[in-house]
Amino acid sequence: MSVKKMGTQTVKLYNPPTILTTASIVGPKEGEGPLGSYFDLVLNDDLYEEKTWEKAESKMTKETIKIALEKIKLTPEKIDYYFGGDLLNQIISSSFAARELKIPFFGLYGACSTMTESLSLAAMIIDGGYADYVIAATSSHFSSAERQYRFPLELGSQRPPTSQWTVTGAGAAILGSTGTGPYITYVTTGRVLDFGIKDANNMGAAMAPAAADTIIRHFKDTGRRPKDYDLIITGDLGQVGKELAIQVVAENGYDISGRFTDCGVEIFDLSSQDVHAGGSGCGCSAATLCGYLYSLLVSGSINKLLIISTGALLSPTSTLQGESIPSVAHAVAIERSI
Amino acid sequence: MSVKKMGTQTVKLYNPPTILTTASIVGPKEGEGPLGSYFDLVLNDDLYEEKTWEKAESKMTKETIKIALEKIKLTPEKIDYYFGGDLLNQIISSSFAARELKIPFFGLYGACSTMTESLSLAAMIIDGGYADYVIAATSSHFSSAERQYRFPLELGSQRPPTSQWTVTGAGAAILGSTGTGPYITYVTTGRVLDFGIKDANNMGAAMAPAAADTIIRHFKDTGRRPKDYDLIITGDLGQVGKELAIQVVAENGYDISGRFTDCGVEIFDLSSQDVHAGGSGCGCSAATLCGYLYSLLVSGSINKLLIISTGALLSPTSTLQGESIPSVAHAVAIERSI
Repeated sequence: MSVKKMGTQTVKLYNPPTILTTASIVGPKEGEGPLGSYFDLVLNDDLYEEKTWEKAESKMTKETIKIALEKIKLTPEKIDYYFGGDLLNQIISSSFAARELKIPFFGLYGACSTMTESLSLAAMIIDGGYADYVIAATSSHFSSAERQYRFPLELGSQRPPTSQWTVTGAGAAILGSTGTGPYITYVTTGRVLDFGIKDANNMGAAMAPAAADTIIRHFKDTGRRPKDYDLIITGDLGQVGKELAIQVVAENGYDISGRFTDCGVEIFDLSSQDVHAGGSGCGCSAATLCGYLYSLLVSGSINKLLIISTGALLSPTSTLQGESIPSVAHAVAIERSI
Repeated sequence: MSVKKMGTQTVKLYNPPTILTTASIVGPKEGEGPLGSYFDLVLNDDLYEEKTWEKAESKMTKETIKIALEKIKLTPEKIDYYFGGDLLNQIISSSFAARELKIPFFGLYGACSTMTESLSLAAMIIDGGYADYVIAATSSHFSSAERQYRFPLELGSQRPPTSQWTVTGAGAAILGSTGTGPYITYVTTGRVLDFGIKDANNMGAAMAPAAADTIIRHFKDTGRRPKDYDLIITGDLGQVGKELAIQVVAENGYDISGRFTDCGVEIFDLSSQDVHAGGSGCGCSAATLCGYLYSLLVSGSINKLLIISTGALLSPTSTLQGESIPSVAHAVAIERSI
């Protein structure tokens, strides 16, 4: 029997890796939001001096990783693995970044759950003794996502109130086998759930059950309670999904209200930035974690964080073929000291 | 320093997981090929009683996993993790299979390298003590891939001689922490390389450098030589890429000729099946490994296998935007006894 497994979906890291550093780059709109001062770079133009939004997104990924490497004076050659993915078809943002960096690369696709998916795998690979330095990174871009998943921006399609705004942003974390924290201590891996929601403009509702399932499972597996965390934060449920998640988790005996929020709700000012239900995209939890939350941990403003990035696993093709939206959520516990 | 790392890109598994069983399903054309008798199920119709090819592909993935589970009398609840991905946008074949199975799911995108990418991660996660049972699975489908990556089949576009034929097939392997082999003993993880090839109809040439790089790296890292393996096999270089890979590896001091072939060359009869340079797709190395090669290992026809699935990390969008084709290749060593 596996000795590191707790319950059915959680592993405890006995040699918890340190998040040595993080970096984040965001677009202009995200820079104007409430977390604007926490990012390493705010772009003036979301084309980032490239000819296409897709190339801009890949550059954002690559440059974010480079900033992180520079912060701790590491070269790419020192990195054992790069775990990354993004929303674009065939994860070209990440693959093209990996081409420049020449680090052994594990490509992931977890939709907007990619930040914690990459952190989960990176953490286990380090804890298990297979690596000393691992990069976990992801990105999204409003303009590249919008035209791939929905409509050409030039159409000016109206957005319903439940829709979310894909964050233009990238986040990268470098994990190390030695260090003084913040540490990744637990990893709870999500199952793919589907409650039959078919509205691709209401992904918060589609993802809320998966988020709730992983949160509940984390508490059951570890024996922890909500009060053991200073902050519990989901990836991009937005305002609609956030309320649903609180409710489902409460119905299962865990009151997370008061210490729970969502990166999609925090990264924009919902009252003034015209983003409707909030932010979304891989970059949402990535930039919020690698910008804002990491600095809260390092400064001691919070000591224990449970972050649960959430992914809606739909494709434009699956929607056209009448499928509902399966979702997944992966949780990692990050603690300032152990 | 990580003690399990050898050289720069390889890890040695000190508690090597056993491949407890495998399963494979292929389409009619693959069933007519030289390996036809090795697959668990050959479909009569590549729609597999579904309304679309995408749904058929997802069903193939799910049913392949179910066949594997049945072979060793395991239920999905016993499986700790499912590592999977495929070629479809947002890996819907795998995500939708994961929805049915409700196993904690790590979605991957490695293009046609997915079989060994999933085996690499599954093997490390078991070796590290995080899991007892893990599924590694992937699939591809000629008709869903063709219309997503190239042209609607109804167009009847002509295919150039260097083009390959996407295998309709799925393969699943169940790895366990205890067992009597075949064992996964080494994992060599590839870097993303790009030698500037832009012809999406010549992916064998685009992928050959990545395959050669990983093979050479495996020998350098482990100190092994080609003669230490009974068979060295790449994923889907096809006839063109296979010859290039032999040449590049030879230029670096390792003569693999005589014990080297490619799944894309083996799965079809190139002289009679009109597949031009050979098979491709995630399902190519997946079905070849999980059907043919696994049975060679179990029967003792071969004792040591090095398999290197190869992925071309292009997208239709990246091609339209003038990008060349980055590629990656991941190697795993599989040995009948240790």
